[in-house]
Amino acid sequence: MENRIPTPSIAPPDIVRCAYTDLVVTDLERSRKFYVDVLGLHVTEEDENAIYLRSLEEFIHHNLVLRKGPVAAVAALAYRVRTPEDVDVAEAYYKELGCRTERRRDGFVKGIGDSVRVEDPLGFPYEFFYETEHVERLTQRYDLYSAGELVRLDHFNQVTPDVPRGRAYLEDLGFRVSEDIKDSDGVTYAAWMHRKHTVHDTALTGGDGPRMHHMAFATHEKHNIIQICDKMGALRISDRIERGPGRHGVSNAFYLYILDPDDHRIEIYTQDYYTGDPDNPTITWDVHDNQRRDWWGNPVVPSWYTEASLVLDLDGNPQPLTARTETSEMAVTIGADGFSYTRPDYDAGSSSGEAAQGFKIGTQL
Amino acid sequence: MENRIPTPSIAPPDIVRCAYTDLVVTDLERSRKFYVDVLGLHVTEEDENAIYLRSLEEFIHHNLVLRKGPVAAVAALAYRVRTPEDVDVAEAYYKELGCRTERRRDGFVKGIGDSVRVEDPLGFPYEFFYETEHVERLTQRYDLYSAGELVRLDHFNQVTPDVPRGRAYLEDLGFRVSEDIKDSDGVTYAAWMHRKHTVHDTALTGGDGPRMHHMAFATHEKHNIIQICDKMGALRISDRIERGPGRHGVSNAFYLYILDPDDHRIEIYTQDYYTGDPDNPTITWDVHDNQRRDWWGNPVVPSWYTEASLVLDLDGNPQPLTARTETSEMAVTIGADGFSYTRPDYDAGSSSGEAAQGFKIGTQL
Amino acid sequence: MENRIPTPSIAPPDIVRCAYTDLVVTDLERSRKFYVDVLGLHVTEEDENAIYLRSLEEFIHHNLVLRKGPVAAVAALAYRVRTPEDVDVAEAYYKELGCRTERRRDGFVKGIGDSVRVEDPLGFPYEFFYETEHVERLTQRYDLYSAGELVRLDHFNQVTPDVPRGRAYLEDLGFRVSEDIKDSDGVTYAAWMHRKHTVHDTALTGGDGPRMHHMAFATHEKHNIIQICDKMGALRISDRIERGPGRHGVSNAFYLYILDPDDHRIEIYTQDYYTGDPDNPTITWDVHDNQRRDWWGNPVVPSWYTEASLVLDLDGNPQPLTARTETSEMAVTIGADGFSYTRPDYDAGSSSGEAAQGFKIGTQL
Amino acid sequence: MENRIPTPSIAPPDIVRCAYTDLVVTDLERSRKFYVDVLGLHVTEEDENAIYLRSLEEFIHHNLVLRKGPVAAVAALAYRVRTPEDVDVAEAYYKELGCRTERRRDGFVKGIGDSVRVEDPLGFPYEFFYETEHVERLTQRYDLYSAGELVRLDHFNQVTPDVPRGRAYLEDLGFRVSEDIKDSDGVTYAAWMHRKHTVHDTALTGGDGPRMHHMAFATHEKHNIIQICDKMGALRISDRIERGPGRHGVSNAFYLYILDPDDHRIEIYTQDYYTGDPDNPTITWDVHDNQRRDWWGNPVVPSWYTEASLVLDLDGNPQPLTARTETSEMAVTIGADGFSYTRPDYDAGSSSGEAAQGFKIGTQL
Repeated sequence: MENRIPTPSIAPPDIVRCAYTDLVVTDLERSRKFYVDVLGLHVTEEDENAIYLRSLEEFIHHNLVLRKGPVAAVAALAYRVRTPEDVDVAEAYYKELGCRTERRRDGFVKGIGDSVRVEDPLGFPYEFFYETEHVERLTQRYDLYSAGELVRLDHFNQVTPDVPRGRAYLEDLGFRVSEDIKDSDGVTYAAWMHRKHTVHDTALTGGDGPRMHHMAFATHEKHNIIQICDKMGALRISDRIERGPGRHGVSNAFYLYILDPDDHRIEIYTQDYYTGDPDNPTITWDVHDNQRRDWWGNPVVPSWYTEASLVLDLDGNPQPLTARTETSEMAVTIGADGFSYTRPDYDAGSSSGEAAQGFKIGTQL
Repeated sequence: MENRIPTPSIAPPDIVRCAYTDLVVTDLERSRKFYVDVLGLHVTEEDENAIYLRSLEEFIHHNLVLRKGPVAAVAALAYRVRTPEDVDVAEAYYKELGCRTERRRDGFVKGIGDSVRVEDPLGFPYEFFYETEHVERLTQRYDLYSAGELVRLDHFNQVTPDVPRGRAYLEDLGFRVSEDIKDSDGVTYAAWMHRKHTVHDTALTGGDGPRMHHMAFATHEKHNIIQICDKMGALRISDRIERGPGRHGVSNAFYLYILDPDDHRIEIYTQDYYTGDPDNPTITWDVHDNQRRDWWGNPVVPSWYTEASLVLDLDGNPQPLTARTETSEMAVTIGADGFSYTRPDYDAGSSSGEAAQGFKIGTQL
Repeated sequence: MENRIPTPSIAPPDIVRCAYTDLVVTDLERSRKFYVDVLGLHVTEEDENAIYLRSLEEFIHHNLVLRKGPVAAVAALAYRVRTPEDVDVAEAYYKELGCRTERRRDGFVKGIGDSVRVEDPLGFPYEFFYETEHVERLTQRYDLYSAGELVRLDHFNQVTPDVPRGRAYLEDLGFRVSEDIKDSDGVTYAAWMHRKHTVHDTALTGGDGPRMHHMAFATHEKHNIIQICDKMGALRISDRIERGPGRHGVSNAFYLYILDPDDHRIEIYTQDYYTGDPDNPTITWDVHDNQRRDWWGNPVVPSWYTEASLVLDLDGNPQPLTARTETSEMAVTIGADGFSYTRPDYDAGSSSGEAAQGFKIGTQL
Repeated sequence: MENRIPTPSIAPPDIVRCAYTDLVVTDLERSRKFYVDVLGLHVTEEDENAIYLRSLEEFIHHNLVLRKGPVAAVAALAYRVRTPEDVDVAEAYYKELGCRTERRRDGFVKGIGDSVRVEDPLGFPYEFFYETEHVERLTQRYDLYSAGELVRLDHFNQVTPDVPRGRAYLEDLGFRVSEDIKDSDGVTYAAWMHRKHTVHDTALTGGDGPRMHHMAFATHEKHNIIQICDKMGALRISDRIERGPGRHGVSNAFYLYILDPDDHRIEIYTQDYYTGDPDNPTITWDVHDNQRRDWWGNPVVPSWYTEASLVLDLDGNPQPLTARTETSEMAVTIGADGFSYTRPDYDAGSSSGEAAQGFKIGTQL
């Protein structure tokens, strides 16, 4: 981990949670159909350039901004901080890191007040804010409750080439690691980090970056996720179901990955576990464990490893990508040079039929 | 459909429903672990040679016999008939068809009385019985209710080379077709047929036969099926999850396919629909519709198309297989010469990227 | 059982299932809000006098007709029969019973053809039909699937003074008893009877009759029923939730009773069990078993015992009521002269505190 | 709020969450049957005097200690604090409050290290600890997952005469109020307070105190709670189901209240909402709103208002009770002098039938 991002001299801002994504889409009406008509997010307000959406149990102005633009990308991943002063702290913190920052007292988007946006050391556009307009929390509006209702924003997931480097930076920023994926050579493939009491507010996935891998909304129960699949089948857009549903090994959540009209990836997620204790045990998964990404051993589709959303700099231009130099998770788990196992006592050198048994992709083609 | 199986001059027996499978396994203790410890079926009785199992809501003696034998295979697929006289009818019916039959007044297995077994025109060992020992129906024994509880035997599924030939024979026998899969050339790939008011008591899957493709148990709700996956993950036998969970296009049921220690395939199934009306509409699916087998467009694994269980003749010897001569479903839907679509207006001749988009296997490898 | 209804000399019509209710409501728009906006039934067609509604998985024209009229009542309980000829049989059958009948070749309501309506020996307006317009079965229209979706009509429930008399009549008509409630003196309080393979197509509840106690729609899973409660809470009509949700002892179904704007009672119901075998065991419950009506021992509200909907004669006039002369279930289970127990070994003469413990109403007031 | 408990000069300990209850039971074997065989809690360790139990997703030593003793009571409500030093802070904090404290470096119970117990200003035995033995977190042990699995300790609920007095004390201690129940005269009937990101770690219920109203365990989904009811029915202990299942108005959680063999009340609870933001909106319910305690308007049984568990002082003697002097919630909502409404625009002075309609107890008896 040469090239460590320095730890600033001042304490980091007190981040409460991931709060919203500012997302650039190329066809606003087409995206509205996906997020409002298919997924049922609730419109706080909208105009011809942007739509502000929130999940059922949200009381801040929005969890997602759809903004019309020429290139599909992420304009900001926004965190809420504990106090108005934490915005000042965030600005100072990133200035000390040498990052470009931009402060807007009236906010960058509707419904959000004093905010700072930064181009962070990993190249991501992070926003920090406290002030926000409170809106009706729809928690008990069961008259509006759809069969696949999304109730909370759960987390972001970011692609970055060097996961340990990013992890150290985020730990400095106050995040705590709940789980990670490594191999016996010490390579880290991914890490999950939280501020609120869930498995993550954001995660780092090793790959060419900076890119956003996905953002995730939570449902109450597993059948809500199944309904989203069923509805996408009914609408004949099942080809936009990329992966799942399944049970994650990491996080233990029940999950689904779908693609919006611009190929931005959305996860639907439910029932991870409480992580709020100071000594919450960190779980490390072996990259060769075939149940790490899907507890049932179902294959991760290659696009899930390779595709992700561009992110923008503060001028609105896509950030250039830096390639991952370490081995990729896909390469070490699928195909000629890689392998996975179902049982930890798997003997890779065995000449028996046992070897092939554990890896389901191999038997599928 | 040359070679049609003749319709007997007498009316067929009045079949009530699929009732049990007599299954040969090579290691009784190993199979007991799977069916009792993993799947939670209830033991009615057992000795050193056989185990009699039933689902929670069953009141007849068993739905499954595990019998120790040298070759994993199906010894009988047993149907219950409406009256004791229907056993006589069945015997006469198959004698007229020129089939070998064997009548045992005391039954072939414990808990079942007067029965006839036949080698049917498709080569399957069918049994017909009325008499059975009633046992405790465990419907309200919620103290025994496991998180993945199997509550009913739902159906059999049989592999046969010529589906229309088998279908006509089963229609003569009183089955009614609820759904089938065809192509525009008139080839039938599979058909679902029922006596009770569900989508099927048995189905015919086109392929080299006679073989048993699977038998299926029903659960109450979808989460019960997810729990079975989760438990198999916890036991590190996720490689025995062959396909799913998913939502079927055909039948609309939520499903899962798993493999027992002898590779007998078990489906777990829930929530198909009522078919008891005399004019229940038959649904025909296009073989190229990528949502026919999985409503979410998730790929059918090749083993699901190619592997199945041997069936025995009345002497206990495996029946030889006859190869399917028509095109296989796998060939016409996957790979170089085949294709599937997500949307019916898919243009196979299109040069746009749209073509590949709908077929998820293609993007996965 | 003096006064037994004679068994006709001809065989009864072959009834397939309960099919629809023709329901008179006093304010069509108000009822539409309840059945369409709150419960989500699907409109097949409507005009200023009537609304034709069906459940998600129905393929016949409707399961419920809301008809504007001066007095809230039931105009018909309609059964589907197996063949067109069964309508002739039904007409002849009831003529032989001396009942008033009316035959309409074009049907009494839209979407239904040749039908006969009768004033049956218990005073109920029964209809028998075969011909019906097929409409789109919405089974896989998950884009229309609400969180509390009603998927099938499950059963009727009728109030009649003399349950054994009504039961014998319905057994003659081809119904089979799945469960009943009795006491040790031989009094029958209620009986459940089926044609399709569920616990009932109709049930008889002892009380002043003829009246309709309720009709029931099925959902797929238990959470769908909970959502209906939650939605009624959100709409501030929780006072229209009369009883439940709960688990029935009889039928084992998960249930809810709600009241429409005219106080017609609707049950929402899920997950009873298969009854299609010819020797399906009949379950008799002791009227004093406090888990017979609610498996969790939660109290039956008095209105559930006393209130029900009027039924009309073929001229559209309400049928007069005949009082039940035997003891009422409410009287023998609640209050000064009655009692219930949680455990069968309950000693009513015990002086210990154990006696009162089992009966939850007693401890609640 | 005369008699306010003074705010100490030092900052309070940093409480992480409610962690466990030290519960005195009179028959250890009988209680083991309830908590282990019926509810499925997992035994960390046990001896002849005590059983240490934990929920599925717990990694600290236990969430519940069952301790044999002469009088059923609560020996301690234990909170986990963020650091070892917070135990010192807690001791100093309560000493300044003039409370009796007892410090044990080796803990009061197995699996817990350095702890302080106090007799708090409300008379409750509170414990604060950081050190604990980590045990296997069973989160993914789906082979152990029962159909009614309890996955987390969620909260305590305490009965105290003067809710505002207790609330101010707990706010000083760092708790934040998520919801409360008041009337238009300013009387507070109950308040919910949290440290972790859920609706509460503890709540105050107005009544004669100090007593423990209940402790609550969380399940993943609603069907898990229904299974617990179904199982108690199967075991013929449905009379130990005190109230529910239902949907809370306050907290929005799906709930059930059951009674252990000593009448200690246990709540089973699922799906409240995220409260971690610093400005999480506090919800105040009108005591006359009939949906506040049950969103479906189902009646609160009187025992739920009146019964609760004794708590012990640090010598193990039951604390004497102080009577509530303000009006009780039961009195103002049920019966001659009280009332509740379903709709907020209810006119209490109305002479129409509307008045009685909204209140379901009244129509039930």
